[in-house]
Amino acid sequence: MASVHALDVASSPVTVGPGVRGPALEEHLGRHGLTLGHLPQSWEFATMGGYAATRSAGQAATGVGRFDDLVAGLTLATPSRVLALGSPPASAAGPDLLGLALGSEGALGVITELTLRVRPEPRARHYEGWSFRSWEAGLAGLQRMARHDLLPDVVRLSDPDETRADLLTASGTGASLLRGSLRLRRRAAGCLLVVGWEGLPAAVRARQRAAASVLRGAGAVRLGARVGEAWRRHRYAAPYTRDSLLDAGLLVETLETAATWTALPTVHDAVREALRTRLGRRGKQPLVMSHVSHVYPTGASLYVTVLADRDDALPIQQWLAAERAATDALLAAGGTLTHHHAVGADHRPWLEREVGALGVDVLRAVKQRLDPRGICNPGVLLPD
Amino acid sequence: MASVHALDVASSPVTVGPGVRGPALEEHLGRHGLTLGHLPQSWEFATMGGYAATRSAGQAATGVGRFDDLVAGLTLATPSRVLALGSPPASAAGPDLLGLALGSEGALGVITELTLRVRPEPRARHYEGWSFRSWEAGLAGLQRMARHDLLPDVVRLSDPDETRADLLTASGTGASLLRGSLRLRRRAAGCLLVVGWEGLPAAVRARQRAAASVLRGAGAVRLGARVGEAWRRHRYAAPYTRDSLLDAGLLVETLETAATWTALPTVHDAVREALRTRLGRRGKQPLVMSHVSHVYPTGASLYVTVLADRDDALPIQQWLAAERAATDALLAAGGTLTHHHAVGADHRPWLEREVGALGVDVLRAVKQRLDPRGICNPGVLLPD
Repeated sequence: MASVHALDVASSPVTVGPGVRGPALEEHLGRHGLTLGHLPQSWEFATMGGYAATRSAGQAATGVGRFDDLVAGLTLATPSRVLALGSPPASAAGPDLLGLALGSEGALGVITELTLRVRPEPRARHYEGWSFRSWEAGLAGLQRMARHDLLPDVVRLSDPDETRADLLTASGTGASLLRGSLRLRRRAAGCLLVVGWEGLPAAVRARQRAAASVLRGAGAVRLGARVGEAWRRHRYAAPYTRDSLLDAGLLVETLETAATWTALPTVHDAVREALRTRLGRRGKQPLVMSHVSHVYPTGASLYVTVLADRDDALPIQQWLAAERAATDALLAAGGTLTHHHAVGADHRPWLEREVGALGVDVLRAVKQRLDPRGICNPGVLLPD
Repeated sequence: MASVHALDVASSPVTVGPGVRGPALEEHLGRHGLTLGHLPQSWEFATMGGYAATRSAGQAATGVGRFDDLVAGLTLATPSRVLALGSPPASAAGPDLLGLALGSEGALGVITELTLRVRPEPRARHYEGWSFRSWEAGLAGLQRMARHDLLPDVVRLSDPDETRADLLTASGTGASLLRGSLRLRRRAAGCLLVVGWEGLPAAVRARQRAAASVLRGAGAVRLGARVGEAWRRHRYAAPYTRDSLLDAGLLVETLETAATWTALPTVHDAVREALRTRLGRRGKQPLVMSHVSHVYPTGASLYVTVLADRDDALPIQQWLAAERAATDALLAAGGTLTHHHAVGADHRPWLEREVGALGVDVLRAVKQRLDPRGICNPGVLLPD
């Protein structure tokens, strides 16, 4: 379950058991000069089968973004025999059955093997920071890069609240210099953008130059490589920081969605408004911070972190009520139910609003065919 | 059915009826500086609904390649109500139901509306020709470009037989000069590669330079822009040439597949061998020409054109027997049943070999839920 079965260096797929974790796979691939490169914040602990079952999204937003795109094939052991899915490199032979197994959350069967696309380890890496005067200007800049196929491998645009919090909590001489420099340029209330490129040195340079010209055209100011590298160093730190904040008596939660460029500002406002209304307590306003981490030609994801005064009498109900309000608000504004994390038990009540009653029925028909007695992972994905 | 319903210039999706044809859509988009860019040889006559129902593959192989990737959403009118599918820009809310409608060939319902990703019209275009000494060297060069994310928007590598035929039939002074130059460099028996880039001028230049360095490293010789432009001018001519060849008494047919880089040479040999064995007649060997037109990190497509002495007593059976032998051979060698053209009626007998008996049953269960009386497009996709 947790072993690497076959590595076809010529074609660059690798066949693995579903229990393999990120660090073990990267170590194995590294010996052949290869990498998978899927790096969500959970990567120290999450498994390949888990990524596939939940349609995980990694931190290399446009380079190695969605795990969906890395799966060339998989086997799904169902109560009605085994399904072998996927015809690499691509096929037009009927509807895509592999896409039914991705995101199936164990409800259709158990993923027993995966064939994954891997790539050469990057020979060069370049991360840097930029500053936009406003959230609107930042979104317009990202959209322009996406439309012209000039997206870096990593893109992370923080809204003004997240930018302010990042700048306040950053430590070291570099951070002080950056704060001073932003104040001088009247950018302290702006939006921080981290971008990163990985690959062959010449390609990294060419892509970085082309993107810089678009960013400058969109009014952004370059903050340099130190800001980018600081983000890269601390990329897995957030969940650990969260533990400390929880210990300090705060409510700390996250939620995420995606929307078209047109709907994204409305979704951003609606989620913030819902969370502020629900989590304000004893005269204390919650801190609601957002960033865009995955960018597409048609739109982008939105990842929201909230810090609030915790109701220690009812900490779980406090968050569930706020999350319900925020989910209703983001769906009404045109956001998708989830971009990073599957449906699970939390989002089941909303699945019908996302795919329609007939869409849920199609999933039920597939489950009925593969798992007629309903023994596979009950309680997730499909509403009761 | 054939009108453009909505164009969201900010987010760049366009909503169209399923009956819209390529030229009408491109004319409409062109007024806004946009393009869809999906250009299969059939584009003068094919419809957007048809592209989606068959999972069409266009000629801009890696830029705007598979129509699958251009569909952000669609509505499918089924005998059991309407399904609205797709959450742009991306979603992790359960399995991908949109992927069930793509390639459904009318067997699950009728596509009544599509939301398509469009992009800015390219400001620069650059096409050029290269020559490889051998088919193996050409495939290795493409694989290397794919692994390093350096693929041009158009890639077309002809095998030695197709290269020889292209050079023989090309006309004009440029063609004579090219033939002479290739003979001098001892490349007359080599493989012709056409590559093309489209987009912002600086990005086209940067990508072209990076790709050129990989191609030179793989032993290719640059033939210049005239060869590339000649291909671009004649890109829709092949079906018309076929009509003349049919009139002249030849059997002219095509088939296509895709395979991993490891399997591709074996698939190429197997298809050629099967067609030569079946279509040799009265001492005349058929001409079997192949090219790679769609390239992925894990492998590539293979498009095969065959010219043979026609049996005028049984012209259809002659081809069906040869196609059956070639399809058996390519599946046994690891190719996919089809990369460009869906299953239809022709490939139905092989669908179970491609997706397994249980895979076919899953499709049947979905059809049963959406079309319980089996009235939607009988005779395609699903075996009887």
